[in-house]
Amino acid sequence: MRYQDKFIFGAAYYEEYMPCERLEEDMKMMVEAGFNTIRIGESTWSVEEPFPGSYDFSHIDRVIDSAEHHGLYVIVGTPTYAVPHWLVQLDPDVLVTTKDGKAKYGARQNMDITNPTYRFYAERMIRAIVSHTVNRKNVIGFQIDNETKHYGTAGDKVTILFQRWLQTKFKTIEEVNEAFGLNYWSNSVTRFEDLPNPAGTINGSYACAFAKFQRYMAEDFLMWQSNIVKEYLRPDQFITQNFDYEWKSFGAPGQQDGYSWGVQPDICHWHSAKAMTLIGTDIYCFVQDKLTGREIAFGGDLMRSLRKENYLVLESQAQAFADWLPYPGQLRLMAFSHLASGACGVMYWNWHSLHNGIESYWKGILGHDFEPNPVYDEICLIGKEMRRLSDKINGLKKKNRIALVVSTNTVNALKWFPTHKALQYNDVVHWVYDALYELNLECDVIFAQEWDWSDYDMIIFPELYSMHGSMAGRIREFVARGGTVFATFRSFVADKHVKIYHDRLPHDLTDVFGMTYNQYTRPVNVTVGGVEAKYWMELLNPTSAIPVENYTHGYWGKYAAVTKNHYEKGTAWYLGTMLSDEKLKEYLLAAAKDAGIEVQSQCWPIIIRNGISQEGKRLQFLLNYSNQNVPVCIGCQGRDLISNKIYKKNEEVLLMEWGVAVIEEA
Amino acid sequence: MRYQDKFIFGAAYYEEYMPCERLEEDMKMMVEAGFNTIRIGESTWSVEEPFPGSYDFSHIDRVIDSAEHHGLYVIVGTPTYAVPHWLVQLDPDVLVTTKDGKAKYGARQNMDITNPTYRFYAERMIRAIVSHTVNRKNVIGFQIDNETKHYGTAGDKVTILFQRWLQTKFKTIEEVNEAFGLNYWSNSVTRFEDLPNPAGTINGSYACAFAKFQRYMAEDFLMWQSNIVKEYLRPDQFITQNFDYEWKSFGAPGQQDGYSWGVQPDICHWHSAKAMTLIGTDIYCFVQDKLTGREIAFGGDLMRSLRKENYLVLESQAQAFADWLPYPGQLRLMAFSHLASGACGVMYWNWHSLHNGIESYWKGILGHDFEPNPVYDEICLIGKEMRRLSDKINGLKKKNRIALVVSTNTVNALKWFPTHKALQYNDVVHWVYDALYELNLECDVIFAQEWDWSDYDMIIFPELYSMHGSMAGRIREFVARGGTVFATFRSFVADKHVKIYHDRLPHDLTDVFGMTYNQYTRPVNVTVGGVEAKYWMELLNPTSAIPVENYTHGYWGKYAAVTKNHYEKGTAWYLGTMLSDEKLKEYLLAAAKDAGIEVQSQCWPIIIRNGISQEGKRLQFLLNYSNQNVPVCIGCQGRDLISNKIYKKNEEVLLMEWGVAVIEEA
Amino acid sequence: MRYQDKFIFGAAYYEEYMPCERLEEDMKMMVEAGFNTIRIGESTWSVEEPFPGSYDFSHIDRVIDSAEHHGLYVIVGTPTYAVPHWLVQLDPDVLVTTKDGKAKYGARQNMDITNPTYRFYAERMIRAIVSHTVNRKNVIGFQIDNETKHYGTAGDKVTILFQRWLQTKFKTIEEVNEAFGLNYWSNSVTRFEDLPNPAGTINGSYACAFAKFQRYMAEDFLMWQSNIVKEYLRPDQFITQNFDYEWKSFGAPGQQDGYSWGVQPDICHWHSAKAMTLIGTDIYCFVQDKLTGREIAFGGDLMRSLRKENYLVLESQAQAFADWLPYPGQLRLMAFSHLASGACGVMYWNWHSLHNGIESYWKGILGHDFEPNPVYDEICLIGKEMRRLSDKINGLKKKNRIALVVSTNTVNALKWFPTHKALQYNDVVHWVYDALYELNLECDVIFAQEWDWSDYDMIIFPELYSMHGSMAGRIREFVARGGTVFATFRSFVADKHVKIYHDRLPHDLTDVFGMTYNQYTRPVNVTVGGVEAKYWMELLNPTSAIPVENYTHGYWGKYAAVTKNHYEKGTAWYLGTMLSDEKLKEYLLAAAKDAGIEVQSQCWPIIIRNGISQEGKRLQFLLNYSNQNVPVCIGCQGRDLISNKIYKKNEEVLLMEWGVAVIEEA
Repeated sequence: MRYQDKFIFGAAYYEEYMPCERLEEDMKMMVEAGFNTIRIGESTWSVEEPFPGSYDFSHIDRVIDSAEHHGLYVIVGTPTYAVPHWLVQLDPDVLVTTKDGKAKYGARQNMDITNPTYRFYAERMIRAIVSHTVNRKNVIGFQIDNETKHYGTAGDKVTILFQRWLQTKFKTIEEVNEAFGLNYWSNSVTRFEDLPNPAGTINGSYACAFAKFQRYMAEDFLMWQSNIVKEYLRPDQFITQNFDYEWKSFGAPGQQDGYSWGVQPDICHWHSAKAMTLIGTDIYCFVQDKLTGREIAFGGDLMRSLRKENYLVLESQAQAFADWLPYPGQLRLMAFSHLASGACGVMYWNWHSLHNGIESYWKGILGHDFEPNPVYDEICLIGKEMRRLSDKINGLKKKNRIALVVSTNTVNALKWFPTHKALQYNDVVHWVYDALYELNLECDVIFAQEWDWSDYDMIIFPELYSMHGSMAGRIREFVARGGTVFATFRSFVADKHVKIYHDRLPHDLTDVFGMTYNQYTRPVNVTVGGVEAKYWMELLNPTSAIPVENYTHGYWGKYAAVTKNHYEKGTAWYLGTMLSDEKLKEYLLAAAKDAGIEVQSQCWPIIIRNGISQEGKRLQFLLNYSNQNVPVCIGCQGRDLISNKIYKKNEEVLLMEWGVAVIEEA
Repeated sequence: MRYQDKFIFGAAYYEEYMPCERLEEDMKMMVEAGFNTIRIGESTWSVEEPFPGSYDFSHIDRVIDSAEHHGLYVIVGTPTYAVPHWLVQLDPDVLVTTKDGKAKYGARQNMDITNPTYRFYAERMIRAIVSHTVNRKNVIGFQIDNETKHYGTAGDKVTILFQRWLQTKFKTIEEVNEAFGLNYWSNSVTRFEDLPNPAGTINGSYACAFAKFQRYMAEDFLMWQSNIVKEYLRPDQFITQNFDYEWKSFGAPGQQDGYSWGVQPDICHWHSAKAMTLIGTDIYCFVQDKLTGREIAFGGDLMRSLRKENYLVLESQAQAFADWLPYPGQLRLMAFSHLASGACGVMYWNWHSLHNGIESYWKGILGHDFEPNPVYDEICLIGKEMRRLSDKINGLKKKNRIALVVSTNTVNALKWFPTHKALQYNDVVHWVYDALYELNLECDVIFAQEWDWSDYDMIIFPELYSMHGSMAGRIREFVARGGTVFATFRSFVADKHVKIYHDRLPHDLTDVFGMTYNQYTRPVNVTVGGVEAKYWMELLNPTSAIPVENYTHGYWGKYAAVTKNHYEKGTAWYLGTMLSDEKLKEYLLAAAKDAGIEVQSQCWPIIIRNGISQEGKRLQFLLNYSNQNVPVCIGCQGRDLISNKIYKKNEEVLLMEWGVAVIEEA
Repeated sequence: MRYQDKFIFGAAYYEEYMPCERLEEDMKMMVEAGFNTIRIGESTWSVEEPFPGSYDFSHIDRVIDSAEHHGLYVIVGTPTYAVPHWLVQLDPDVLVTTKDGKAKYGARQNMDITNPTYRFYAERMIRAIVSHTVNRKNVIGFQIDNETKHYGTAGDKVTILFQRWLQTKFKTIEEVNEAFGLNYWSNSVTRFEDLPNPAGTINGSYACAFAKFQRYMAEDFLMWQSNIVKEYLRPDQFITQNFDYEWKSFGAPGQQDGYSWGVQPDICHWHSAKAMTLIGTDIYCFVQDKLTGREIAFGGDLMRSLRKENYLVLESQAQAFADWLPYPGQLRLMAFSHLASGACGVMYWNWHSLHNGIESYWKGILGHDFEPNPVYDEICLIGKEMRRLSDKINGLKKKNRIALVVSTNTVNALKWFPTHKALQYNDVVHWVYDALYELNLECDVIFAQEWDWSDYDMIIFPELYSMHGSMAGRIREFVARGGTVFATFRSFVADKHVKIYHDRLPHDLTDVFGMTYNQYTRPVNVTVGGVEAKYWMELLNPTSAIPVENYTHGYWGKYAAVTKNHYEKGTAWYLGTMLSDEKLKEYLLAAAKDAGIEVQSQCWPIIIRNGISQEGKRLQFLLNYSNQNVPVCIGCQGRDLISNKIYKKNEEVLLMEWGVAVIEEA
């Protein structure tokens, strides 16, 4: 059987970190857990090349040998994201210089990915590890680097590269001055080589251009790795990478906490997907009473939408942080949720808990004592189910009619021009996404550069602050042809250089939305339809639009808060302020109705996700995100692939607490 | 008509920042708004000198030309507060070194104002711009630099200058050791040239002396600019500068918020006023439901008191921050409030909202779309009123009987020796000032170095921690002759070197105040006359004073909190702790009564400000700082210059919400 | 009379800091206050050596002369903890490089204690001051340095020393890699000289080893000073030092606040005690309504336990911070509390309040005006009592049956692997210690390296995270022989290299505790016996242990929270989570009962501390930590040494608010 044919199930395995001999015992326990794959080697350069030029793959070899013996596939990682100390000794400039100064040796991801010394040794190492393992038959693919980002590289040499990159984008320096508005506070220059290091800039346009260039460097780095690996790759092997998200953290320094939050500002997933043949990702989220499935769904919808393909969850949490010890049933619910979004595999991070280092309390499946435990026991159960159901549910195809548009450039732009100090771009993205998710209105999450909107009936723009010049035309056309758009405050404000437009807002779309505004303020004791307005309010003046709701306030009551406009065959909603989740859901449901999209009767904590199986059958994933048993009515005749029970149309499925059913329609 | 004869009304105008051709349209809109003046050029060095030594004044010229054509005056700024990047390339030491390290290029006000390279190029630029524009007939004055301060300049060369400056103040190094108490923790030295860079000092006296030297450098820098400009100046032209205040901010980094708060620690207004022929200032404050007029009154009283002259408000807010969009009527109320404090003009910052740079959301009169809007419309109304009333109300003369004494040195001293971590000097200054303001007890705000107290009947000392040695004698004399003084806790504690006095407190004034103390603590569950004591409490032991109120507390009840002493012909009040605003007002009213000062029956939100017009008539400004219409009884017969309605004595004027009346007494 | 025969009573005295001539007056006031000792000179290097190599001991001499004249002893300090500026000019590397960069000149304790230039000049100074004063008959001892710690020294030369130190601890570099788990994230090296500067490390084991090395440097520095001083010392003179504690602070930068909190991470008291012949310490704590006596008892129990000897309180607060002005009676209560823990003397910091420098508002006995005040008056009373009672109560011997085990290494380990971001190691230590204190269960506070447990019946381990390999065996033996142990969560988890053990937890003690666990999480809505569980909960699986209490929670209810196990002749308690103080006290009382320890009927705010006087009589110190008069029943016949009143058995002593009685049993 080929790996493509079954659901990948496994964990990261670090034999190099073991405090004692465990290999044979671990392999047996993994087989017992239903694993078919392990991921190795992505952070152990110093072990694999203890002296410059002297390689030692003994750990790699014995793990691949043992995996082969036990029937496990292996994904081999290139170890380039954690550099050995000797490399820093050879060239201290291997350590990245960020706007906060030079990094210190110790952590991973602290190198300058443009540094030639780093690139030279990294390339030699990539060629060594790939050529050494590529012909092992159980090696199914390679992971290049890990959670790659630009790491804030911003030294003076990077400024020179940035100047040259700008020179490929602009014909003259006058164009640069004008595009970024550098006359402000005496920042204009007369030669490209005079453009300053952006570390101290007060110009958001210049800063966002630099951030875009930093992302470009990370994308270029990945493509470079990918091209090296491709020289060796067998046709049946894949290249993947571990895309992660903007991370939301809460803790004191030294605390490990947070979760996979939103659109990643430090590399563009859409651009860098080109370096991969299989999209990979990691998703971490709260569990226990805070498990909602939102992060799993959001990450999955974004990854799947990159190329409308299935993707591999390279890291999913096992025990993780102290507050994340899952309740019984939760790991299983999470695994099926990944599947329901189109994942072709789930791998845990990691097999065992580490006895040293900063991730010692980012726990794996096994605790520090290597004993079986409730988490391991549940993974054994999941493994058996995956093995049994793999043919039926692997390779799920999804076709959604709603798209939610996100923008990497806007993440940065709104850090410079925040809507409110307590409200970031990803808060607004999640505010809208989560409402859709909870309403069981499935959507694709697409990037602003993605232009094929032909599959969609409704497109949503949460805070699309920075837009490409041509987008307004596309939106006009989409609505004219009958589509529904739904945009929030601070959309269509600035151009791709983050220069604020100087025509009426929303830029070039006042006809489509049938309104305009040029004043906005913060709501204080302002309500909309009885609900408090928060953070930001635009004082909308409808022209042709219907004022769905006005503000309630002594001075602002004459302005609309929400408008809806019929433009040619379509409809355009605009939300000028932030309201409660419930109020937002009302408007989204109304807009979905405008778009002719069927609304589910169930909503969160019951989540229903749909897709088409490889056999061409419609699958309904029923996911119970609550600690109560809940009866759920299914709208079709079908069979629960898990219990094998057959249900008549409109019969109720009893979902147990944190329970799952997968209904294959008859 | 000369500019001196009319009220200056206008805005800052930056043609250099325009994203499109707007000049003619802008001029028309400004004339329509009743403007007579624009301010240009104070931050556009890189545009005016794109290459070292190569000047380009085309923007300046066409704006002056167009202004002339439209009958507008122009104030030309020297662009020295934002350096071009080429200047930093020529000499990286142009960037200031502060105690936090070297500044990065990008922001304004990041240069070392003592750096000779900077001074050389700045001087050449000042001479170029001034000589180029000085003979234009509509150029009425020059603004030198902008919001000048010392920018924390603290490099090693500044230490050398500091050592030499100290050498001019002290005869021997032993005197320095003694004045600052450098023996403490081994900080004493034996030669002036051994005095260390103050960046790491733990000696508040040494640090405050350095801060004073830093202020001196800023004052010297302004005087140097002023002298250069004076070489070219026509007799009918003025030199001004933009004095600002300690800024109170709240936001996260990258947020622009805060307001004009209090006494400026980074330049001494009193000293540096010498560099100006017309005092200028900018004042920013909360609006909407938080508009109180306090900041306008405080800033105005301080500016006017610098030389008992009228002053120009070079920057007043238009739309400003998102939360500062004014309610209808508020801009007008604010403009009249400036007038009521003695302003001879109000200019907005700025004409249009910027499309790039860090102040893009510090909005001007026009939004990013350049369209008329409610703020512009209101300014048009104000403009018409100003034009009509200019003869009547411009050049208001004020004569107050109360002075409130502030100290730049004390701002710094109390940062070293804070009363409470949540209470800064300017909090206490505003606590007292605001109480007076709300009671309609008008005062001058004078500096501690200002010795002519002959106009006053009552002098107030909020936290005058650091005092010049001779001040005690002056106070004694003032009280002896019949004056009333009112001092708060932590006044008269340390000498001018911020060395704590070692005699009984209040230093050299125990006879005048009739009490002493040498213990103090923080109040916890302590009340004074039923009101909670906060932050700090001195345990006062009256000798001849009347204990107006004792503390209520199990152990501290035997000590007085507030004392009043009759000393010769006068009275001396002392407040040993911080109480509620209402309680403070009680004591201030009682003290005003002691001083024979008439008390107003109205209080905030109705503000009454008085003055004498150029025609010699008494004007009463009635200002309604509330969203309610309020009838106000005027104590004289007179005419409202705005409505032209005539009122009999004790007749009621109905002030509309945020409304204004200007009563000219018959 | 020799100093050893009487209770040392006095203050730090800094003639060098005086703003005026005060010596004779001060001496008279000190004699009046009952002082017998002053401490001088520990921070005035720049005064004593104004030029390199040129000494000036005139201040020292005249103070010793005057003290001699007035019958006062003198403790002379070496001034090495505050360097003169000329020393930094001679070698800028005298300033310490920490992980945050190079220190700036100004503060004390900012030098690199390994720097040879510093050591050279320090040694010359030590020899000069000691040889100059050692033969003065009223000099009773020397204090070497002051509050010595490692000051974070972490420059590249310190890394080289650290590499060499590790080479003395490990045979091969492979052992280092394995002990610290350096394979993680590519941190392994192949030569000792390749081990990186730990400033950037993400390896807690490596970081803790470096912290241990830093402490070793501080200990070595003290021993070096001690050996120099010993070359000169008379047999009747002592060498002491000023041990302080981890400091808990709250304030904004520039605020001086906080208190003596817990185990000191920056020097090991147990190791460095070897450099002293008389243990010295300073203890600062809240007063007024927050005076509890905890810090005095904890510090005293720790200091006394270092060598089972009496110790000198070198610094106790007088007026100190503004919020610490003591209520009448509190200073006296504090002085007797020091005595009750085994102090052989109390010295105040300091005599007078300073007129300059960062400690100006860390006030002494006299305020800035040098006048008598209520604090001075109370110290006069204490002085008289001490003089009268000295023979009776000085040199108290204590013999406690309970030991509480603390670990310097664990302080650091738990900063890397915190139980909760709001809970530090010293919080847990104080949680347990304070419960004992309030129950009047007196204990010794011993270090984890202290192996003689023969005196104890009960040993308590709060969060003993990092343990030496042999400790488990010692504990097993202690319990087997009939002892009671009481351990909290996160004890016995990691080895001395802070590597987490890979066997079952608690490491090597599952038989003794009769339980194990390998899962833990954060409690959310979890109770134990009706009380909220906080911060951390281990899911305990009893084997032979009694589950004293299980968690109450939907999913975790099957696990024990508290267990008790009978192991051979003894008992082992284990507490898997943090509970209320009251709940902890229940368990501690039960465990004390298991250990056969008599429980007091009184508890805080009445504190009862016991000891044996030099005359061999049992003394009971009754301390009233409340503002109420409280009758206390004494369980024996005796005489109150203070009032001289004789009490019958079970007669009640009426303790006045903040009052004291010292009952000498008949």
